[in-house]
Amino acid sequence: MMFDLKASFNFSNDVSSIKKELKDFIIEFNKKIILKDKTFKIKEVKIDKINLSFNIISEGVFRPHNALLQIKNEISKEFGKKHHLGVREIKIHNYSISFELEKKPLKKVTIPFADIIFKDKQATLIMNNVDEEFLRHNYIDRMISRVQEKVASHYYEGKSEFWKALWESEPKKPVWTKDPTEEMVQLGWLQQGPTKGKWFYRPQATTIMKTMQKIAIEEILKPLGFKEIISSHIVPFDIWLKTGHMQGMPGEFYYVSEPATRDTEKWEHFVDLTKITKEIPEEELKKNLATPTSGLCYAQCPVIYWSFKGKTISEKSLPVFVYDNTVISSRYESGGRHGIERVDEFHRIEPIYIGTPEQLLNLRDKMLECYKHVFNNIFDLEWRMARVTPWYMQQAGEIGDENTKETGTIDFEAYMPYRGDRKKSEWLEFQNLSILGDKYIKAFNIKAQKSQLWSGCSGIGLERWVTAFLAQKGLDSNNWPKGFRKYLDKLPDGIEFL
Amino acid sequence: MMFDLKASFNFSNDVSSIKKELKDFIIEFNKKIILKDKTFKIKEVKIDKINLSFNIISEGVFRPHNALLQIKNEISKEFGKKHHLGVREIKIHNYSISFELEKKPLKKVTIPFADIIFKDKQATLIMNNVDEEFLRHNYIDRMISRVQEKVASHYYEGKSEFWKALWESEPKKPVWTKDPTEEMVQLGWLQQGPTKGKWFYRPQATTIMKTMQKIAIEEILKPLGFKEIISSHIVPFDIWLKTGHMQGMPGEFYYVSEPATRDTEKWEHFVDLTKITKEIPEEELKKNLATPTSGLCYAQCPVIYWSFKGKTISEKSLPVFVYDNTVISSRYESGGRHGIERVDEFHRIEPIYIGTPEQLLNLRDKMLECYKHVFNNIFDLEWRMARVTPWYMQQAGEIGDENTKETGTIDFEAYMPYRGDRKKSEWLEFQNLSILGDKYIKAFNIKAQKSQLWSGCSGIGLERWVTAFLAQKGLDSNNWPKGFRKYLDKLPDGIEFL
Repeated sequence: MMFDLKASFNFSNDVSSIKKELKDFIIEFNKKIILKDKTFKIKEVKIDKINLSFNIISEGVFRPHNALLQIKNEISKEFGKKHHLGVREIKIHNYSISFELEKKPLKKVTIPFADIIFKDKQATLIMNNVDEEFLRHNYIDRMISRVQEKVASHYYEGKSEFWKALWESEPKKPVWTKDPTEEMVQLGWLQQGPTKGKWFYRPQATTIMKTMQKIAIEEILKPLGFKEIISSHIVPFDIWLKTGHMQGMPGEFYYVSEPATRDTEKWEHFVDLTKITKEIPEEELKKNLATPTSGLCYAQCPVIYWSFKGKTISEKSLPVFVYDNTVISSRYESGGRHGIERVDEFHRIEPIYIGTPEQLLNLRDKMLECYKHVFNNIFDLEWRMARVTPWYMQQAGEIGDENTKETGTIDFEAYMPYRGDRKKSEWLEFQNLSILGDKYIKAFNIKAQKSQLWSGCSGIGLERWVTAFLAQKGLDSNNWPKGFRKYLDKLPDGIEFL
Repeated sequence: MMFDLKASFNFSNDVSSIKKELKDFIIEFNKKIILKDKTFKIKEVKIDKINLSFNIISEGVFRPHNALLQIKNEISKEFGKKHHLGVREIKIHNYSISFELEKKPLKKVTIPFADIIFKDKQATLIMNNVDEEFLRHNYIDRMISRVQEKVASHYYEGKSEFWKALWESEPKKPVWTKDPTEEMVQLGWLQQGPTKGKWFYRPQATTIMKTMQKIAIEEILKPLGFKEIISSHIVPFDIWLKTGHMQGMPGEFYYVSEPATRDTEKWEHFVDLTKITKEIPEEELKKNLATPTSGLCYAQCPVIYWSFKGKTISEKSLPVFVYDNTVISSRYESGGRHGIERVDEFHRIEPIYIGTPEQLLNLRDKMLECYKHVFNNIFDLEWRMARVTPWYMQQAGEIGDENTKETGTIDFEAYMPYRGDRKKSEWLEFQNLSILGDKYIKAFNIKAQKSQLWSGCSGIGLERWVTAFLAQKGLDSNNWPKGFRKYLDKLPDGIEFL
């Protein structure tokens, strides 16, 4: 890396009379820093009336912008009292930072706060007239990382995610090849919801959803010792900043706006207009709303981790196995919606586990056994498991690799007969299981009395279970496997419309 | 009422040559209308080149603004072809409407689109330079209603709501007099949520909540034949316009903003800024969000009614008894929050019933029996029932009276020992039951094959049940009544923190 900073200080008084002392001071400062970073050099020191200007270069062990703030402080200490002198203003005329990339960019890269020039694998950030506040905030390092990340993304964009088969069931003859959502809508079991990508489940479809919930609790969560908690479905941005969701998928959230006030007088004009025009006055509404600072649950785990934030868990409470079965998830899907299997609003049980690595690897094996039991013996599904890009890397748009064997995500995929040939069609991801190492443990500063902690989660999406099951087994309960009929033998009568 | 409209038409050509025909036409028109409304009079008819101006007055059976549009059409028909003549523009120079109020206003009243003058009990709306579009939209009648409504509100503002005792249990000796939320927080059963007025329920508090849910289903909903449905938790404004929520309580919603786009390129600058500054760039966020067109569930019933919108229910499906036990409710409470009993996010089972008046009155009696059984025999509560302002009038800010005996709302209130003396302290409304007549049936155009339909609902707020019970019975399960201990004898172990 190569840092090149041209800056100047404006003093409160003319410093011509102490020119020599100031120059000596700068030389001494340089000598001191060279002990830590031999590439560090302050050049072209010039003094003109109230102005001291110089050029700092370094290869980056000690960064010029940090030096600049340090010089300012030390000058104030050294000369301030003696000469009634203060640094009025720091001016950064030009700051350029060059660094090597692993590979050269494949398309245009931009970054806030700087221009950027590429020469093969070398990137140069150029900033003019930067203010001191900017340097203090430590943006520079994050700007460099962001450029590296953007260029790296050129190489994995469009590449398929990492996927490695782990296990596959026997092929099973499907009962039918229809799309279960369409058929349920036809039968009136299910109805499109009032807004995009939402559904209204009538008694028949609800019974199937709730049966899935019961099976998950009775066959998986209770036997493994999970305890239920109730989380909140509104997630403040600061939680998503910690988990990386905010940076990873801001275009996929449903955002929440609070009223700017609850005062009925402030809302009177809005109410007047609404009552008179029978329409919502958009501009008047905007006036009365605050800018969003939160969004609707995207996955339950961030708030559950937050509930442990900064806490130290007693050893005897380890492992912590909890699940939320209450919070509804919302994702802005835009183009990709299909049936109840890809929707904007869905219902997921989210088990979260926190414990020692041994405890979690042990849980994973037991949990896999439970899932196998449900999918083989109760649902009688044709399905498979694959090791995929870890969940948190997916969220950050990264593709992952085989390096992480113990931590990582396993996807469970079901054959969907309505999509065509089992070899060629896309299977439905209807379950996953992740061991995430200490990623979220660190992000939320969660500690145990003594042990090292890991965490993980395994979202059970009820809509996905329902679609995988019905796509293979049909809507006629007579064709359902025995194991499932123990839980649900007969659907309730529906509501008849003329 | 007195309407006084001064208007003029501009024609495409000079109409001086057909002055007489036009004046005769106006006189004939007036004669025709007088048959329907003898107060209707067109005066001061003047023609000057392309301009025809006049003054219409009436006492309102036939309204001048409707006449104006009719005159325009008839002139086009009568003179259009013959004289190659068209009305280019309608100008409403002045429109004043006077009407009697029941009582005179007690404070200033304003209304959009008009100035307003009061003289005792007479109100006069004055509008200058109104456009034709405005008249077509039928705003005038709604403006008059809105003024009447505002003045009426001066007389019941601050008045306490209608409340009439129906039944009261024996006084019961409470086990303790502490605030259950505070105690649960102390014990770590419960934790403040990440945003205002939300809670995070740890395993102990969750178990109590879920026990309430089970009791409601097993003791009330299943025995009465209710079937579960799953509704959507995002409510578009058009549904709230029909139920009146949008006009009634716009300052109490949590609004939902969708992303303006899901396109990652459009979000790139937002992501850059977020990653570099570790803060949310508010202006950049606003650019990428759409204006809200929906909000979070306030009560479940509007979307459930919507699911029946425009449908005709077959006689054999009547009565329809359904409940939603999935959707979470959100209300912006601002100042009034307290514990888990008055919160921004809560969990309610919402039973909805649609049927003939006889079926619903019969259901009400049976439902009251079930509630009594639960509150007396299972919870052993000190509680009472009162007839109160019907639910939909509460929502509209009205206070109600005793006129409606069959339709209406019954509130269930529990003594809260921590609030002090049972005679002087405010009891907690922990349940209600409403029969709403055909209000929502009409709003959503729901029909039966033959029968007249009514509807109603009876929200079961789990947080309210929990607080009412714990406030009287305490947190030590040894002190809980036998009936309740059949459902919950022992709380799960919690998670211990150091």
